[in-house]
Amino acid sequence: MGTEISSAVIRRLPRYYRYLGELMAHDVVRISSKELSERMGVTASQIRQDLNNFGGFGQQGYGYNVEYLYTEIGKILGLDRKKEMIVIGAGNLGRALANYSDFERRGFVIKALFDISSNLVGKSVNGIPVLSMEKIPTYLKENKIDIAAITIPKEAAPQVAADLVKAGIKAIWNFAPTDLSLPDYVVQENVHLTESLMRLSYKLRASEDK
Amino acid sequence: MGTEISSAVIRRLPRYYRYLGELMAHDVVRISSKELSERMGVTASQIRQDLNNFGGFGQQGYGYNVEYLYTEIGKILGLDRKKEMIVIGAGNLGRALANYSDFERRGFVIKALFDISSNLVGKSVNGIPVLSMEKIPTYLKENKIDIAAITIPKEAAPQVAADLVKAGIKAIWNFAPTDLSLPDYVVQENVHLTESLMRLSYKLRASEDK
Repeated sequence: MGTEISSAVIRRLPRYYRYLGELMAHDVVRISSKELSERMGVTASQIRQDLNNFGGFGQQGYGYNVEYLYTEIGKILGLDRKKEMIVIGAGNLGRALANYSDFERRGFVIKALFDISSNLVGKSVNGIPVLSMEKIPTYLKENKIDIAAITIPKEAAPQVAADLVKAGIKAIWNFAPTDLSLPDYVVQENVHLTESLMRLSYKLRASEDK
Repeated sequence: MGTEISSAVIRRLPRYYRYLGELMAHDVVRISSKELSERMGVTASQIRQDLNNFGGFGQQGYGYNVEYLYTEIGKILGLDRKKEMIVIGAGNLGRALANYSDFERRGFVIKALFDISSNLVGKSVNGIPVLSMEKIPTYLKENKIDIAAITIPKEAAPQVAADLVKAGIKAIWNFAPTDLSLPDYVVQENVHLTESLMRLSYKLRASEDK
């Protein structure tokens, strides 16, 4: 399980998780794939197909138990275990991540930021210390960190990523507008803001063509 | 054209555009789908299939003219026309967007930020003025704005999005961790940071299972 799931399914899982969390907050106990599909704007058969990748979870004609499905998808997403993170770069983007309350609620805890600027090192953001970039290897030796977020310019990102991997990091969340070449045993997820904006531009142009 | 293209293809187009731009910067004039596929980490047949959606661009056995393909993909993405943007929210994330130099290089120009905080209104970020949220309708009447980015908390986002649409905005770039219900004629692109982090968590868990 896990390795053969398509990236399109993985892309949708966090959305299922978010919707199911909202349903739980509204005390919904059970939901049919039809209702869930109407809320999420995907087809019911899509939902059934997606969830079948992980063994189903539903009973024909009976729908899904919201809390059970939420918990199980959480496990698939690895959210049953707290993740400790560091953020490389304490600029606006790094600080935005440090201030983002949604992460901790989902079990992602930012332990430290790192920056080269002496104006920032020694300060803290939302109670999280900003340390010198030079401290990264020592810090990673002394602390069990699961994920490193990279929010520095793309010129510096490949070297920093290589250093992080050498220091034992197994997961990189990359905001630099470049694709990092990493060993196979290191996972990465990219947030390419310009590409997202280009997709919006595409949709805008396509809608104007109609 | 445009309306029937799958979202997976649209997702890849900006990456093609970025890679082709890098090839141009290295004075590469022509490239085969095989070489392009090796650089991008997708199959050559995937690239041919993707580009066939837009009429091909390549000649069998001859490869792609890099600059021509770059220009044509740029047109498909609507990048041949400059886009003017506003950013709602001048917190860390809004300021990160205002400071992000990559956007302007691609023709996306941020003209103003809007915030409710009197500490921020009247200031400027990277030379871009921060205006009061109340000014949005007047501002949109007096300025032709293509895109509004929303970087405010999710509780406030739906109402602000509705107000933006009422004031004539046709494209919303949403960073609030919620899906906005918008009329069909308004396009949206979401950057859901927590979902991206969950996908990374999924990959990490799946790699640990191996």
